[in-house]
Amino acid sequence: MFLGKVIGSVWATQKEEGMDNLKLMIVQPLDLRERESGQTVIAADRIGAGVGEKVIVSRGSPARILFSGKQVPVDAMIVGIVDSYEIGIEPE
Amino acid sequence: MFLGKVIGSVWATQKEEGMDNLKLMIVQPLDLRERESGQTVIAADRIGAGVGEKVIVSRGSPARILFSGKQVPVDAMIVGIVDSYEIGIEPE
Amino acid sequence: MFLGKVIGSVWATQKEEGMDNLKLMIVQPLDLRERESGQTVIAADRIGAGVGEKVIVSRGSPARILFSGKQVPVDAMIVGIVDSYEIGIEPE
Amino acid sequence: MFLGKVIGSVWATQKEEGMDNLKLMIVQPLDLRERESGQTVIAADRIGAGVGEKVIVSRGSPARILFSGKQVPVDAMIVGIVDSYEIGIEPE
Amino acid sequence: MFLGKVIGSVWATQKEEGMDNLKLMIVQPLDLRERESGQTVIAADRIGAGVGEKVIVSRGSPARILFSGKQVPVDAMIVGIVDSYEIGIEPE
Repeated sequence: MFLGKVIGSVWATQKEEGMDNLKLMIVQPLDLRERESGQTVIAADRIGAGVGEKVIVSRGSPARILFSGKQVPVDAMIVGIVDSYEIGIEPE
Repeated sequence: MFLGKVIGSVWATQKEEGMDNLKLMIVQPLDLRERESGQTVIAADRIGAGVGEKVIVSRGSPARILFSGKQVPVDAMIVGIVDSYEIGIEPE
Repeated sequence: MFLGKVIGSVWATQKEEGMDNLKLMIVQPLDLRERESGQTVIAADRIGAGVGEKVIVSRGSPARILFSGKQVPVDAMIVGIVDSYEIGIEPE
Repeated sequence: MFLGKVIGSVWATQKEEGMDNLKLMIVQPLDLRERESGQTVIAADRIGAGVGEKVIVSRGSPARILFSGKQVPVDAMIVGIVDSYEIGIEPE
Repeated sequence: MFLGKVIGSVWATQKEEGMDNLKLMIVQPLDLRERESGQTVIAADRIGAGVGEKVIVSRGSPARILFSGKQVPVDAMIVGIVDSYEIGIEPE
Protein backbone atom coordinates (compact mmCIF):
# COMPACT_ATOMS: atom_id res chain seq x y z
CA MET A 1 0.00 0.00 0.00
CA PHE A 2 1.08 3.61 -0.13
CA LEU A 3 0.40 6.72 1.92
CA GLY A 4 -1.47 9.46 0.08
CA LYS A 5 -3.65 12.50 0.44
CA VAL A 6 -7.09 12.81 -1.15
CA ILE A 7 -6.98 15.92 -3.29
CA GLY A 8 -10.09 15.69 -5.42
CA SER A 9 -12.67 13.56 -7.17
CA VAL A 10 -13.58 12.59 -10.71
CA TRP A 11 -16.89 11.91 -12.48
CA ALA A 12 -17.65 9.76 -15.50
CA THR A 13 -21.08 9.08 -17.02
CA GLN A 14 -19.95 6.83 -19.80
CA LYS A 15 -18.24 3.91 -18.16
CA GLU A 16 -17.48 0.20 -18.20
CA GLU A 17 -19.52 -2.53 -16.56
CA GLY A 18 -19.06 -2.66 -12.83
CA MET A 19 -18.04 1.00 -12.52
CA ASP A 20 -21.52 2.19 -11.42
CA ASN A 21 -22.02 3.70 -8.01
CA LEU A 22 -18.34 3.98 -7.32
CA LYS A 23 -16.95 7.12 -5.71
CA LEU A 24 -13.65 7.85 -7.42
CA MET A 25 -11.11 9.99 -5.60
CA ILE A 26 -7.86 11.50 -6.82
CA VAL A 27 -5.04 10.59 -4.44
CA GLN A 28 -1.60 12.17 -4.36
CA PRO A 29 1.09 9.82 -3.01
CA LEU A 30 3.14 11.46 -0.25
CA ASP A 31 6.63 10.84 0.99
CA LEU A 32 7.40 10.82 4.72
CA ARG A 33 7.99 14.52 4.75
CA GLU A 34 4.47 14.72 3.27
CA ARG A 35 5.70 16.10 0.02
CA GLU A 36 4.21 15.15 -3.35
CA SER A 37 5.83 11.92 -4.51
CA GLY A 38 4.97 10.24 -7.79
CA GLN A 39 1.92 10.38 -10.05
CA THR A 40 -1.62 10.78 -8.76
CA VAL A 41 -3.82 7.69 -8.62
CA ILE A 42 -7.59 7.43 -9.10
CA ALA A 43 -8.84 5.14 -6.33
CA ALA A 44 -12.35 3.94 -5.46
CA ASP A 45 -13.57 4.82 -1.98
CA ARG A 46 -16.22 3.04 0.09
CA ILE A 47 -15.19 4.24 3.54
CA GLY A 48 -15.97 7.94 3.28
CA ALA A 49 -12.58 9.51 2.69
CA GLY A 50 -12.79 13.27 2.18
CA VAL A 51 -10.62 15.78 0.39
CA GLY A 52 -7.59 16.65 2.55
CA GLU A 53 -7.53 13.37 4.43
CA LYS A 54 -4.52 11.09 4.50
CA VAL A 55 -5.30 7.59 3.32
CA ILE A 56 -3.83 4.17 2.67
CA VAL A 57 -4.28 2.98 -0.92
CA SER A 58 -3.99 -0.61 -2.11
CA ARG A 59 -3.41 -1.37 -5.76
CA GLY A 60 -3.71 -4.09 -8.36
CA SER A 61 -5.43 -7.40 -7.96
CA PRO A 62 -5.62 -7.17 -4.12
CA ALA A 63 -7.68 -3.95 -4.46
CA ARG A 64 -10.18 -5.80 -6.61
CA ILE A 65 -10.67 -8.66 -4.14
CA LEU A 66 -13.20 -6.53 -2.28
CA PHE A 67 -15.50 -6.99 -5.27
CA SER A 68 -14.78 -10.68 -5.74
CA GLY A 69 -17.47 -12.46 -7.68
CA LYS A 70 -18.31 -9.23 -9.51
CA GLN A 71 -16.77 -7.84 -12.69
CA VAL A 72 -15.50 -4.59 -11.21
CA PRO A 73 -12.38 -3.43 -13.09
CA VAL A 74 -10.99 -1.34 -10.22
CA ASP A 75 -7.21 -1.43 -9.71
CA ALA A 76 -6.92 0.92 -6.69
CA MET A 77 -8.92 1.22 -3.46
CA ILE A 78 -8.72 3.45 -0.43
CA VAL A 79 -8.43 0.82 2.32
CA GLY A 80 -7.89 3.05 5.36
CA ILE A 81 -8.11 6.63 6.58
CA VAL A 82 -4.94 7.41 8.51
CA ASP A 83 -5.36 8.39 12.17
CA SER A 84 -1.66 8.80 12.70
CA TYR A 85 1.67 7.39 11.75
CA GLU A 86 4.95 7.31 13.53
CA ILE A 87 8.45 7.31 12.08
CA GLY A 88 10.74 5.55 14.54
CA ILE A 89 13.91 6.22 12.64
CA GLU A 90 14.73 8.72 9.97
CA PRO A 91 14.76 7.43 6.40
CA GLU A 92 18.45 7.32 5.41
CA MET B 1 -6.60 3.87 -12.17
CA PHE B 2 -4.98 6.88 -13.81
CA LEU B 3 -6.19 9.95 -15.64
CA GLY B 4 -5.17 10.11 -19.29
CA LYS B 5 -5.99 11.59 -22.65
CA VAL B 6 -6.68 9.49 -25.74
CA ILE B 7 -4.18 10.61 -28.37
CA GLY B 8 -4.39 7.93 -31.04
CA SER B 9 -5.07 4.35 -31.99
CA VAL B 10 -3.10 1.32 -33.12
CA TRP B 11 -3.83 -1.54 -35.53
CA ALA B 12 -2.46 -5.06 -35.63
CA THR B 13 -3.46 -7.85 -38.04
CA GLN B 14 -1.18 -10.53 -36.67
CA LYS B 15 -2.17 -11.00 -33.07
CA GLU B 16 -2.60 -13.38 -30.15
CA GLU B 17 -5.74 -15.30 -29.30
CA GLY B 18 -8.38 -13.15 -27.71
CA MET B 19 -7.15 -9.92 -29.28
CA ASP B 20 -9.72 -9.94 -32.12
CA ASN B 21 -12.29 -7.18 -32.37
CA LEU B 22 -10.62 -5.03 -29.79
CA LYS B 23 -10.28 -1.30 -30.35
CA LEU B 24 -6.86 -0.31 -29.06
CA MET B 25 -6.26 3.30 -28.11
CA ILE B 26 -3.05 5.10 -27.21
CA VAL B 27 -3.47 6.94 -23.92
CA GLN B 28 -1.15 9.59 -22.55
CA PRO B 29 -1.21 9.79 -18.73
CA LEU B 30 -1.76 13.35 -17.51
CA ASP B 31 -0.84 15.06 -14.29
CA LEU B 32 -3.27 17.41 -12.57
CA ARG B 33 -2.04 20.34 -14.56
CA GLU B 34 -2.90 18.18 -17.58
CA ARG B 35 0.67 17.91 -18.65
CA GLU B 36 2.19 14.76 -20.13
CA SER B 37 3.24 12.48 -17.27
CA GLY B 38 4.85 9.11 -17.82
CA GLN B 39 4.87 6.68 -20.74
CA THR B 40 1.90 6.17 -23.05
CA VAL B 41 -0.24 3.08 -22.52
CA ILE B 42 -2.13 1.03 -25.11
CA ALA B 43 -5.56 0.38 -23.63
CA ALA B 44 -8.57 -1.50 -25.01
CA ASP B 45 -11.77 0.52 -25.32
CA ARG B 46 -15.35 -0.76 -25.36
CA ILE B 47 -17.14 2.44 -24.34
CA GLY B 48 -16.47 4.63 -27.38
CA ALA B 49 -13.65 6.89 -26.21
CA GLY B 50 -12.45 9.21 -28.95
CA VAL B 51 -9.18 10.98 -29.63
CA GLY B 52 -8.87 14.07 -27.44
CA GLU B 53 -11.12 12.76 -24.66
CA LYS B 54 -9.98 12.43 -21.07
CA VAL B 55 -10.38 8.93 -19.72
CA ILE B 56 -9.86 6.73 -16.69
CA VAL B 57 -7.64 3.71 -17.35
CA SER B 58 -7.42 0.59 -15.20
CA ARG B 59 -4.44 -1.70 -15.46
CA GLY B 60 -3.28 -5.20 -14.73
CA SER B 61 -5.39 -8.11 -13.65
CA PRO B 62 -8.42 -5.92 -12.73
CA ALA B 63 -8.58 -4.66 -16.35
CA ARG B 64 -8.83 -8.23 -17.57
CA ILE B 65 -11.72 -9.16 -15.27
CA LEU B 66 -14.14 -7.67 -17.82
CA PHE B 67 -13.27 -10.62 -20.06
CA SER B 68 -13.37 -13.24 -17.32
CA GLY B 69 -13.87 -16.73 -18.65
CA LYS B 70 -12.15 -15.75 -21.90
CA GLN B 71 -8.44 -15.83 -22.73
CA VAL B 72 -8.05 -12.14 -23.47
CA PRO B 73 -4.49 -11.00 -22.66
CA VAL B 74 -5.40 -7.34 -22.15
CA ASP B 75 -3.62 -5.52 -19.32
CA ALA B 76 -5.21 -2.06 -19.69
CA MET B 77 -8.80 -0.91 -20.24
CA ILE B 78 -10.48 2.44 -20.59
CA VAL B 79 -13.09 2.16 -17.82
CA GLY B 80 -14.59 5.67 -17.91
CA ILE B 81 -14.77 8.83 -20.02
CA VAL B 82 -14.23 11.80 -17.72
CA ASP B 83 -17.07 14.34 -17.49
CA SER B 84 -15.23 16.49 -15.02
CA TYR B 85 -12.93 16.37 -12.10
CA GLU B 86 -12.41 18.68 -9.20
CA ILE B 87 -9.25 19.38 -7.24
CA GLY B 88 -10.26 20.42 -3.75
CA ILE B 89 -6.78 21.23 -2.57
CA GLU B 90 -3.62 21.90 -4.47
CA PRO B 91 -1.15 19.02 -4.75
CA GLU B 92 1.71 19.93 -2.44
CA MET C 1 -0.05 -2.78 -23.09
CA PHE C 2 2.90 -0.84 -24.44
CA LEU C 3 4.37 -0.14 -27.85
CA GLY C 4 7.83 -1.58 -28.41
CA LYS C 5 10.33 -2.71 -30.99
CA VAL C 6 11.80 -6.21 -31.07
CA ILE C 7 15.57 -5.78 -30.91
CA GLY C 8 16.87 -9.27 -30.17
CA SER C 9 16.34 -12.66 -28.60
CA VAL C 10 17.62 -14.62 -25.63
CA TRP C 11 18.35 -18.30 -25.03
CA ALA C 12 18.36 -20.31 -21.83
CA THR C 13 18.96 -24.05 -21.48
CA GLN C 14 18.58 -24.28 -17.74
CA LYS C 15 15.09 -23.07 -16.97
CA GLU C 16 12.00 -23.38 -14.82
CA GLU C 17 9.03 -25.63 -15.48
CA GLY C 18 6.78 -24.31 -18.19
CA MET C 19 9.53 -22.33 -19.94
CA ASP C 20 10.22 -24.99 -22.60
CA ASN C 21 9.59 -24.24 -26.25
CA LEU C 22 9.08 -20.56 -25.67
CA LYS C 23 10.62 -18.05 -28.03
CA LEU C 24 11.87 -15.18 -25.90
CA MET C 25 12.37 -11.79 -27.53
CA ILE C 26 13.99 -8.64 -26.18
CA VAL C 27 11.64 -5.69 -26.64
CA GLN C 28 12.58 -2.04 -26.31
CA PRO C 29 9.63 0.16 -25.27
CA LEU C 30 9.24 3.18 -27.57
CA ASP C 31 7.70 6.56 -27.01
CA LEU C 32 5.52 8.15 -29.68
CA ARG C 33 8.49 9.71 -31.37
CA GLU C 34 9.81 6.11 -31.51
CA ARG C 35 12.67 6.85 -29.20
CA GLU C 36 13.94 4.41 -26.57
CA SER C 37 11.77 4.80 -23.48
CA GLY C 38 12.31 2.74 -20.34
CA GLN C 39 13.98 -0.59 -19.68
CA THR C 40 13.90 -3.48 -22.13
CA VAL C 41 11.49 -6.33 -21.45
CA ILE C 42 11.89 -10.03 -22.25
CA ALA C 43 8.57 -11.15 -23.74
CA ALA C 44 7.44 -14.53 -25.04
CA ASP C 45 6.32 -14.61 -28.67
CA ARG C 46 3.94 -17.07 -30.32
CA ILE C 47 2.90 -14.96 -33.32
CA GLY C 48 6.17 -14.76 -35.22
CA ALA C 49 7.47 -11.30 -34.37
CA GLY C 50 10.87 -10.62 -35.91
CA VAL C 51 13.73 -8.33 -35.00
CA GLY C 52 12.96 -4.77 -36.10
CA GLU C 53 9.18 -5.14 -35.94
CA LYS C 54 6.98 -2.94 -33.80
CA VAL C 55 4.85 -4.89 -31.38
CA ILE C 56 2.25 -4.59 -28.64
CA VAL C 57 3.33 -6.18 -25.35
CA SER C 58 1.01 -7.17 -22.50
CA ARG C 59 2.39 -7.69 -19.02
CA GLY C 60 1.62 -9.32 -15.72
CA SER C 61 -1.16 -11.73 -14.98
CA PRO C 62 -3.09 -10.93 -18.20
CA ALA C 63 -0.06 -12.06 -20.27
CA ARG C 64 -0.14 -15.40 -18.50
CA ILE C 65 -3.83 -16.05 -19.19
CA LEU C 66 -2.89 -17.41 -22.62
CA PHE C 67 -1.37 -20.38 -20.82
CA SER C 68 -4.18 -20.82 -18.33
CA GLY C 69 -4.30 -24.27 -16.83
CA LYS C 70 -0.54 -24.62 -17.30
CA GLN C 71 2.24 -23.57 -14.93
CA VAL C 72 3.94 -21.13 -17.29
CA PRO C 73 5.66 -18.36 -15.31
CA VAL C 74 5.64 -15.83 -18.15
CA ASP C 75 4.92 -12.20 -17.20
CA ALA C 76 5.13 -10.59 -20.66
CA MET C 77 3.75 -11.60 -24.06
CA ILE C 78 3.88 -10.08 -27.52
CA VAL C 79 0.14 -9.87 -28.27
CA GLY C 80 0.20 -8.04 -31.61
CA ILE C 81 2.49 -7.00 -34.45
CA VAL C 82 1.76 -3.37 -35.27
CA ASP C 83 0.54 -2.63 -38.81
CA SER C 84 0.24 1.08 -38.16
CA TYR C 85 -0.71 3.58 -35.55
CA GLU C 86 -2.09 7.05 -35.78
CA ILE C 87 -1.60 9.96 -33.43
CA GLY C 88 -4.63 12.20 -33.70
CA ILE C 89 -3.31 14.89 -31.44
CA GLU C 90 0.14 15.69 -30.27
CA PRO C 91 1.06 14.53 -26.75
CA GLU C 92 1.16 17.70 -24.66
CA MET D 1 10.63 -9.06 -3.42
CA PHE D 2 12.69 -6.12 -2.32
CA LEU D 3 15.05 -5.36 0.56
CA GLY D 4 13.83 -2.65 2.92
CA LYS D 5 14.13 -1.22 6.39
CA VAL D 6 11.16 -0.82 8.73
CA ILE D 7 11.06 2.85 9.68
CA GLY D 8 7.67 3.28 11.30
CA SER D 9 4.05 2.24 11.57
CA VAL D 10 0.64 3.61 10.64
CA TRP D 11 -2.80 3.45 12.28
CA ALA D 12 -6.25 3.66 10.74
CA THR D 13 -9.57 3.29 12.55
CA GLN D 14 -11.81 3.77 9.56
CA LYS D 15 -10.93 1.02 7.15
CA GLU D 16 -12.08 -1.44 4.52
CA GLU D 17 -13.29 -4.97 5.13
CA GLY D 18 -10.48 -7.36 5.87
CA MET D 19 -8.12 -4.67 7.18
CA ASP D 20 -8.88 -5.37 10.86
CA ASN D 21 -6.15 -6.63 13.16
CA LEU D 22 -3.41 -5.96 10.67
CA LYS D 23 -0.15 -4.41 11.83
CA LEU D 24 0.88 -1.95 9.14
CA MET D 25 4.54 -0.96 8.90
CA ILE D 26 6.21 1.71 6.81
CA VAL D 27 9.11 0.21 4.88
CA GLN D 28 11.84 2.15 3.12
CA PRO D 29 13.34 0.24 0.17
CA LEU D 30 17.15 0.14 0.35
CA ASP D 31 19.78 -0.25 -2.32
CA LEU D 32 22.79 -2.49 -1.75
CA ARG D 33 24.75 0.31 -0.17
CA GLU D 34 21.75 0.52 2.20
CA ARG D 35 20.79 3.94 0.98
CA GLU D 36 17.20 5.06 0.56
CA SER D 37 15.96 3.90 -2.84
CA GLY D 38 12.46 4.58 -4.11
CA GLN D 39 9.18 5.40 -2.39
CA THR D 40 8.19 3.99 0.99
CA VAL D 41 5.69 1.13 1.05
CA ILE D 42 3.05 0.32 3.68
CA ALA D 43 3.28 -3.44 4.26
CA ALA D 44 1.35 -5.72 6.60
CA ASP D 45 3.42 -7.64 9.12
CA ARG D 46 2.55 -10.93 10.86
CA ILE D 47 6.07 -12.04 11.79
CA GLY D 48 6.99 -9.41 14.35
CA ALA D 49 9.24 -7.04 12.40
CA GLY D 50 10.34 -4.05 14.45
CA VAL D 51 11.43 -0.55 13.58
CA GLY D 52 15.05 -0.56 12.39
CA GLU D 53 15.01 -4.13 11.13
CA LYS D 54 15.83 -5.09 7.57
CA VAL D 55 13.07 -7.04 5.89
CA ILE D 56 12.04 -8.72 2.66
CA VAL D 57 8.78 -7.38 1.23
CA SER D 58 6.59 -9.12 -1.34
CA ARG D 59 4.07 -7.15 -3.36
CA GLY D 60 0.96 -7.52 -5.42
CA SER D 61 -1.19 -10.58 -5.77
CA PRO D 62 1.46 -12.95 -4.29
CA ALA D 63 1.40 -10.92 -1.04
CA ARG D 64 -2.32 -11.48 -0.79
CA ILE D 65 -2.12 -15.26 -1.20
CA LEU D 66 -1.39 -15.55 2.54
CA PHE D 67 -5.01 -14.51 3.12
CA SER D 68 -6.48 -16.68 0.39
CA GLY D 69 -10.15 -17.37 0.89
CA LYS D 70 -10.54 -14.06 2.75
CA GLN D 71 -11.26 -10.62 1.31
CA VAL D 72 -8.10 -8.93 2.55
CA PRO D 73 -7.10 -6.11 0.18
CA VAL D 74 -3.42 -6.11 1.15
CA ASP D 75 -0.89 -5.57 -1.66
CA ALA D 76 2.35 -5.77 0.34
CA MET D 77 3.57 -8.13 3.08
CA ILE D 78 6.73 -8.43 5.10
CA VAL D 79 7.69 -12.04 4.30
CA GLY D 80 11.06 -12.28 6.04
CA ILE D 81 13.30 -10.53 8.57
CA VAL D 82 16.80 -10.43 7.14
CA ASP D 83 19.51 -12.19 9.16
CA SER D 84 22.23 -11.34 6.68
CA TYR D 85 22.90 -10.93 3.04
CA GLU D 86 26.03 -11.33 0.99
CA ILE D 87 27.05 -9.54 -2.15
CA GLY D 88 29.34 -11.83 -4.12
CA ILE D 89 30.14 -9.35 -6.82
CA GLU D 90 29.81 -5.62 -6.94
CA PRO D 91 26.81 -4.24 -8.82
CA GLU D 92 28.23 -2.79 -12.05
CA MET E 1 10.59 -10.77 -17.69
CA PHE E 2 13.82 -8.87 -17.34
CA LEU E 3 17.50 -9.61 -17.85
CA GLY E 4 19.59 -9.47 -14.67
CA LYS E 5 22.77 -10.63 -13.04
CA VAL E 6 22.84 -12.57 -9.76
CA ILE E 7 25.00 -10.57 -7.39
CA GLY E 8 24.33 -12.12 -4.00
CA SER E 9 21.97 -13.94 -1.69
CA VAL E 10 19.93 -13.18 1.41
CA TRP E 11 18.99 -15.20 4.51
CA ALA E 12 16.02 -14.90 6.82
CA THR E 13 15.19 -17.16 9.77
CA GLN E 14 12.02 -15.44 10.82
CA LYS E 15 9.67 -15.62 7.86
CA GLU E 16 6.14 -15.99 6.59
CA GLU E 17 4.37 -19.23 5.79
CA GLY E 18 5.49 -20.73 2.53
CA MET E 19 8.92 -19.08 2.60
CA ASP E 20 10.73 -22.16 3.96
CA ASN E 21 13.39 -23.89 1.90
CA LEU E 22 13.52 -21.11 -0.66
CA LYS E 23 16.88 -19.94 -1.97
CA LEU E 24 16.67 -16.17 -2.29
CA MET E 25 19.05 -14.41 -4.65
CA ILE E 26 19.72 -10.72 -5.15
CA VAL E 27 19.42 -9.84 -8.83
CA GLN E 28 20.60 -6.63 -10.45
CA PRO E 29 18.63 -5.72 -13.59
CA LEU E 30 20.93 -4.98 -16.53
CA ASP E 31 20.43 -2.90 -19.63
CA LEU E 32 21.63 -4.15 -23.01
CA ARG E 33 25.05 -2.67 -22.50
CA GLU E 34 25.05 -4.78 -19.29
CA ARG E 35 25.10 -1.76 -17.06
CA GLU E 36 23.21 -1.56 -13.78
CA SER E 37 19.62 -0.50 -14.55
CA GLY E 38 17.00 -0.05 -11.87
CA GLN E 39 16.64 -1.37 -8.34
CA THR E 40 17.78 -4.83 -7.28
CA VAL E 41 15.16 -7.54 -6.88
CA ILE E 42 15.10 -10.46 -4.45
CA ALA E 43 14.05 -13.49 -6.49
CA ALA E 44 13.57 -17.13 -5.50
CA ASP E 45 15.71 -19.65 -7.37
CA ARG E 46 15.02 -23.34 -7.94
CA ILE E 47 17.25 -23.90 -10.98
CA GLY E 48 20.67 -23.41 -9.44
CA ALA E 49 21.62 -19.90 -10.52
CA GLY E 50 24.96 -18.80 -9.08
CA VAL E 51 26.48 -15.44 -8.30
CA GLY E 52 27.75 -13.80 -11.48
CA GLU E 53 25.34 -15.57 -13.80
CA LYS E 54 22.93 -13.76 -16.09
CA VAL E 55 19.35 -14.76 -15.54
CA ILE E 56 15.79 -14.14 -16.68
CA VAL E 57 13.48 -13.04 -13.86
CA SER E 58 9.67 -13.17 -13.93
CA ARG E 59 7.65 -11.06 -11.54
CA GLY E 60 4.24 -10.76 -9.97
CA SER E 61 1.45 -13.26 -10.11
CA PRO E 62 3.02 -15.28 -12.98
CA ALA E 63 6.11 -15.93 -10.79
CA ARG E 64 3.87 -17.42 -8.13
CA ILE E 65 2.10 -19.83 -10.49
CA LEU E 66 4.99 -22.29 -10.04
CA PHE E 67 3.73 -22.79 -6.48
CA SER E 68 0.06 -22.96 -7.38
CA GLY E 69 -2.01 -24.67 -4.75
CA LYS E 70 0.45 -23.58 -2.05
CA GLN E 71 0.50 -20.34 -0.08
CA VAL E 72 3.91 -19.14 -1.21
CA PRO E 73 4.05 -15.33 -1.20
CA VAL E 74 6.87 -15.05 -3.75
CA ASP E 75 6.60 -12.23 -6.29
CA ALA E 76 9.80 -12.87 -8.29
CA MET E 77 11.40 -16.05 -9.66
CA ILE E 78 14.51 -16.80 -11.64
CA VAL E 79 12.99 -18.65 -14.61
CA GLY E 80 16.06 -19.12 -16.79
CA ILE E 81 19.86 -18.96 -16.77
CA VAL E 82 20.95 -17.11 -19.90
CA ASP E 83 23.17 -19.01 -22.32
CA SER E 84 23.39 -16.15 -24.75
CA TYR E 85 21.43 -13.31 -26.20
CA GLU E 86 21.67 -11.52 -29.49
CA ILE E 87 20.85 -7.93 -30.30
CA GLY E 88 19.82 -7.76 -33.94
CA ILE E 89 19.48 -4.02 -34.06
CA GLU E 90 20.78 -1.33 -31.81
CA PRO E 91 18.32 0.14 -29.31
CA GLU E 92 17.53 3.63 -30.61
